[in-house]
Amino acid sequence: MISVSVVGASGYSGIELLKILVRHPGVRIDRIFANSSAGKHLAEVAPFFNKSFDRELELYSVDKIVKSDLIFIALPSGEAMNLVPAMLSAGKRVIDLGGDFRLQDISLYERYYKRTHSAAALLKQSVYGLPEWNSSQIQSASLVANPGCYPTSAILPLAPLLKEGIIDSNGIAVSSLSGVSGAGRSSSLEMSFAEVNESVRAYKVGTHQHIPEIKTALELLSNMQVKLTFVPHLLPITRGIYTSTYAMLKKPVTEQTVLAAYEKYYSAAPFVRYSATAIPEIKNVAHTNFIDMGFRINQEDGQLVVLSAIDNLIKGAAGQAVQNMNIMFGIHETEGLK
Amino acid sequence: MISVSVVGASGYSGIELLKILVRHPGVRIDRIFANSSAGKHLAEVAPFFNKSFDRELELYSVDKIVKSDLIFIALPSGEAMNLVPAMLSAGKRVIDLGGDFRLQDISLYERYYKRTHSAAALLKQSVYGLPEWNSSQIQSASLVANPGCYPTSAILPLAPLLKEGIIDSNGIAVSSLSGVSGAGRSSSLEMSFAEVNESVRAYKVGTHQHIPEIKTALELLSNMQVKLTFVPHLLPITRGIYTSTYAMLKKPVTEQTVLAAYEKYYSAAPFVRYSATAIPEIKNVAHTNFIDMGFRINQEDGQLVVLSAIDNLIKGAAGQAVQNMNIMFGIHETEGLK
Amino acid sequence: MISVSVVGASGYSGIELLKILVRHPGVRIDRIFANSSAGKHLAEVAPFFNKSFDRELELYSVDKIVKSDLIFIALPSGEAMNLVPAMLSAGKRVIDLGGDFRLQDISLYERYYKRTHSAAALLKQSVYGLPEWNSSQIQSASLVANPGCYPTSAILPLAPLLKEGIIDSNGIAVSSLSGVSGAGRSSSLEMSFAEVNESVRAYKVGTHQHIPEIKTALELLSNMQVKLTFVPHLLPITRGIYTSTYAMLKKPVTEQTVLAAYEKYYSAAPFVRYSATAIPEIKNVAHTNFIDMGFRINQEDGQLVVLSAIDNLIKGAAGQAVQNMNIMFGIHETEGLK
Amino acid sequence: MISVSVVGASGYSGIELLKILVRHPGVRIDRIFANSSAGKHLAEVAPFFNKSFDRELELYSVDKIVKSDLIFIALPSGEAMNLVPAMLSAGKRVIDLGGDFRLQDISLYERYYKRTHSAAALLKQSVYGLPEWNSSQIQSASLVANPGCYPTSAILPLAPLLKEGIIDSNGIAVSSLSGVSGAGRSSSLEMSFAEVNESVRAYKVGTHQHIPEIKTALELLSNMQVKLTFVPHLLPITRGIYTSTYAMLKKPVTEQTVLAAYEKYYSAAPFVRYSATAIPEIKNVAHTNFIDMGFRINQEDGQLVVLSAIDNLIKGAAGQAVQNMNIMFGIHETEGLK
Repeated sequence: MISVSVVGASGYSGIELLKILVRHPGVRIDRIFANSSAGKHLAEVAPFFNKSFDRELELYSVDKIVKSDLIFIALPSGEAMNLVPAMLSAGKRVIDLGGDFRLQDISLYERYYKRTHSAAALLKQSVYGLPEWNSSQIQSASLVANPGCYPTSAILPLAPLLKEGIIDSNGIAVSSLSGVSGAGRSSSLEMSFAEVNESVRAYKVGTHQHIPEIKTALELLSNMQVKLTFVPHLLPITRGIYTSTYAMLKKPVTEQTVLAAYEKYYSAAPFVRYSATAIPEIKNVAHTNFIDMGFRINQEDGQLVVLSAIDNLIKGAAGQAVQNMNIMFGIHETEGLK
Repeated sequence: MISVSVVGASGYSGIELLKILVRHPGVRIDRIFANSSAGKHLAEVAPFFNKSFDRELELYSVDKIVKSDLIFIALPSGEAMNLVPAMLSAGKRVIDLGGDFRLQDISLYERYYKRTHSAAALLKQSVYGLPEWNSSQIQSASLVANPGCYPTSAILPLAPLLKEGIIDSNGIAVSSLSGVSGAGRSSSLEMSFAEVNESVRAYKVGTHQHIPEIKTALELLSNMQVKLTFVPHLLPITRGIYTSTYAMLKKPVTEQTVLAAYEKYYSAAPFVRYSATAIPEIKNVAHTNFIDMGFRINQEDGQLVVLSAIDNLIKGAAGQAVQNMNIMFGIHETEGLK
Repeated sequence: MISVSVVGASGYSGIELLKILVRHPGVRIDRIFANSSAGKHLAEVAPFFNKSFDRELELYSVDKIVKSDLIFIALPSGEAMNLVPAMLSAGKRVIDLGGDFRLQDISLYERYYKRTHSAAALLKQSVYGLPEWNSSQIQSASLVANPGCYPTSAILPLAPLLKEGIIDSNGIAVSSLSGVSGAGRSSSLEMSFAEVNESVRAYKVGTHQHIPEIKTALELLSNMQVKLTFVPHLLPITRGIYTSTYAMLKKPVTEQTVLAAYEKYYSAAPFVRYSATAIPEIKNVAHTNFIDMGFRINQEDGQLVVLSAIDNLIKGAAGQAVQNMNIMFGIHETEGLK
Repeated sequence: MISVSVVGASGYSGIELLKILVRHPGVRIDRIFANSSAGKHLAEVAPFFNKSFDRELELYSVDKIVKSDLIFIALPSGEAMNLVPAMLSAGKRVIDLGGDFRLQDISLYERYYKRTHSAAALLKQSVYGLPEWNSSQIQSASLVANPGCYPTSAILPLAPLLKEGIIDSNGIAVSSLSGVSGAGRSSSLEMSFAEVNESVRAYKVGTHQHIPEIKTALELLSNMQVKLTFVPHLLPITRGIYTSTYAMLKKPVTEQTVLAAYEKYYSAAPFVRYSATAIPEIKNVAHTNFIDMGFRINQEDGQLVVLSAIDNLIKGAAGQAVQNMNIMFGIHETEGLK
């Protein structure tokens, strides 16, 4: 039985994480923490939990002694870096669902997150928690940086194609669509129903903090310099990410070549589903930890499009975090997630 | 006063067209025709029109004598080609909102529309009704092929960039998102609310009939061979198209260069709005005949993304048809559309 | 040509009002005012207006001299009462889209609006702007209190049934559903997309400020004491109100009796559509000034249900305001609204 | 380990049932049957199940020998009555999620379902599967008629109020709102996204087949004649039912009286949540087997409104069916449902 605590339990990712952990047979939920909701009960903030799971949300502070084996942090980026050093010093293992420990390059962090990093020394021991690629490092990690939702949806379909030399690492276009829960639980005019409904807009074009995360991860995995443009769009749906990635073929290929590349890296991955015929749809992955991937080759124009769909709160956040926990503690990777 | 008739008045485009024509001060609506709804009154099929505009939907046939100056055809592709020859012989002018007369190359038509063309001889006199580029031919045309919704959203932002040598005509990615009204008014499981809602999916990847329309138009306008991949996606909204187009820069450019290209071709276009700062949103163009265009330069990776938004039923269909009518009959281009 | 100014031009009702006024052939828009958006241009706040109508939003204050014939106030309730006295003193006519001048009974105002009324003396000269019932007073009014959206949807179907003695004035249930634009343009967690989408909730049960407005209006029109419960519900749509009203029959009636009651009061009303067979739907009235009404008699249980649909921003706010303006200035009631 | 088979596994209720059964620790899924999808694999029809649960959909016929302990039928009403006699003869226990065995009164069945009942003799042994009221009969039942979604949402909040003499059994109004999945998985123009989205409409007013189910159940439970009007409305959401019920108070009551009535009947019910303060919301019950209930007393007008929310596919169908299964087989009532 792993005992876990959650810091940031009242946001959308934190709530989703608790939904999974409550049903996980190998986990005992210890304490749950929040900031503005501290002092309230979870069921007040998320009435969904009424009569099924409840506990008081406590205020977390650095000197708090938490006896759990593992601490999940589901806070907005910029907060974990102030908490993690003390947690690690106290011998805890940590999975951070935010962005503070995903980029090894401080200058990229500071450019895209627009703040100074207060725990830069820990970056070298942080492991990027993409289980399909980094499973062995995750197993022994003290600090796992859970990947961003967009990066998960883009890196998984692209990495095999780059490694196998199928696509050009130059001129890649990553066009992503996201439901609103990706923006977190907070109030603003631009996220109000009347402004979002029946509309679509690109946002943070050229400045989104997931740009360096996608590029860095792909460059590390493929050992090539990658040139790409990533544009996120906001959709009037609650959850789900759909990513359509366009690239130039290095040479004519068959469907079989592409399938073989996916087979090579993902044949044993329990949450990766791919097909040469089926087109992914968000509804097929909603409320699951799966990523669905499909593709079409445009021989005539020498291009390839890869399509992928995930649930941003599950495979893009809480589900992947639990997948990482399972690996860290030697449990079956799919426990609590199927 | 132009007298007009509408064939296919009970579909989404036909209904939208009637809404515009009813308010147009220079138009008298003559007769309205439908197939499966023939015999019913318009207000039975579209209760919106109750107490505001009503008329019986008649069954159209080739030998029907219509005394109007202009006939709009808003039928599914494949039907207009059987009606237009007789209309033109009778001296009528025609605007076809379907796809039958948009492609000059019969082989492309037959490959993408998957049927034989029964009026191929008329293709050479058909004018592609994109007013921002073909205004003078439209003025004197007997037969105007009103552009497709996706092509309108893609050609307008791309053409100036190709003509001015800003982007590479190779490796272009056109990622389009559409509301469901683009699919027309018909019943199918895959267009049912429960299947579309809270989901997204790409469709007709590599086979959509707008692929040759976009490529052909861009090649004619730019005089270059264009290599591009177009992927349409279905969104859970009723109306609107959002197109994000990714291309490689031929050389480093400034925002000013891009703006100048748009200025050169669209400074006098009443329905084209562009900006170097504002990001288009569907809600800003919904229920209007505008196209909103924005862009971002990715100097670091040598790429450009252009974003555009239209209302698929207005600028992508009925509104553009009325804009074409205005031009054909020497009325102010914006009459009835602002 | 009526010259008008709008105070509160940047909220949803104000924007909708400007859309109608811009197209109204008998109106010249003079000045537009806002609070937090003052100093900006309308098209910055509502990009919809780009290239079609633009003007600077000015800050309004009581001592501002506005030369218009008519001033529309589209501010949150509680603000108009501070502005109207000076406007009337200056000889202007005023239409207030808020709730400050709808209730003659100060104690009801103070109980439901939870504030003191600063211009109580003006209440007796205020006319309740429901054109189907109060047309002649509206004609000569200086101050018109434009009805609330829910009251419009409930009073119109109920008043004839009470006056004709068809239903019991006791035990009426008014169950209303509203899109989110009714809540105005502002940011709050509970109105954010992720909280509203795919859900429904009743709100302000027993405390909504439209309760006394509905009861008072029905009592004045029918000359009976009315006992009713009104429950508003928030729906995940942008615009529209759907009201289902349940009442007990005073005696068995036929459809013909109910139709005759509607015929008696609304046969000449240009924006009231009713039917014994058709069931109203929001989509049939969206973006129009119509109210659609239908009903079913439950003989077995001695009850009647009346169903009505309006666009909350048009017949429930801006459209009805323009209808009132037309009546006040002797223009045809439907001008600019069809 | 209970072995179960599902007839009608490819509709929305059947799919939801399988999602629950797959995770249920006490259940082994034996065979799954479908009609039009027979021969396909479940994951073809519902790609959600890819890599997590798959099995071939077989064609069911009366003479098929199914070795399971329990058969769930999730077919459209009118089909189960042709299958159940043979199943019972073969000694199987059956839970029917359709409407064929819910009404004891054949004439009501034939009036509202508009067909002849072919297995009327079985009605007297059928048990109405509302666990909160009929638990002991369910325990020993061979044939359980799983309640309709609307009836579940209306009977649970109303029955205690009638039994305790709090409300008048005359003049009740049940105003229900439902997501589209309640209509089943099928194609029709009126259920297409473009027709449902951004709209609301009442439907089957006075003719819905759940009217006699609600009245009969309330009359049996309360031992009074009940007069009520039930109006279902279609909402643009996928899942969830929200029911607002209006009734006249028999005498002035306090919140405490109402709470005590709920306490008396539901204090031990694991899936009933009620409150005098909280207002139910669909999002709090979505994807759960809970019913949330709230109420407000309108002393001034002598009325009461009760609000309830359920997930139509879970507590209104598949979840309640599993709850019934648990009771029938002596497992803990909440197994597999929390």
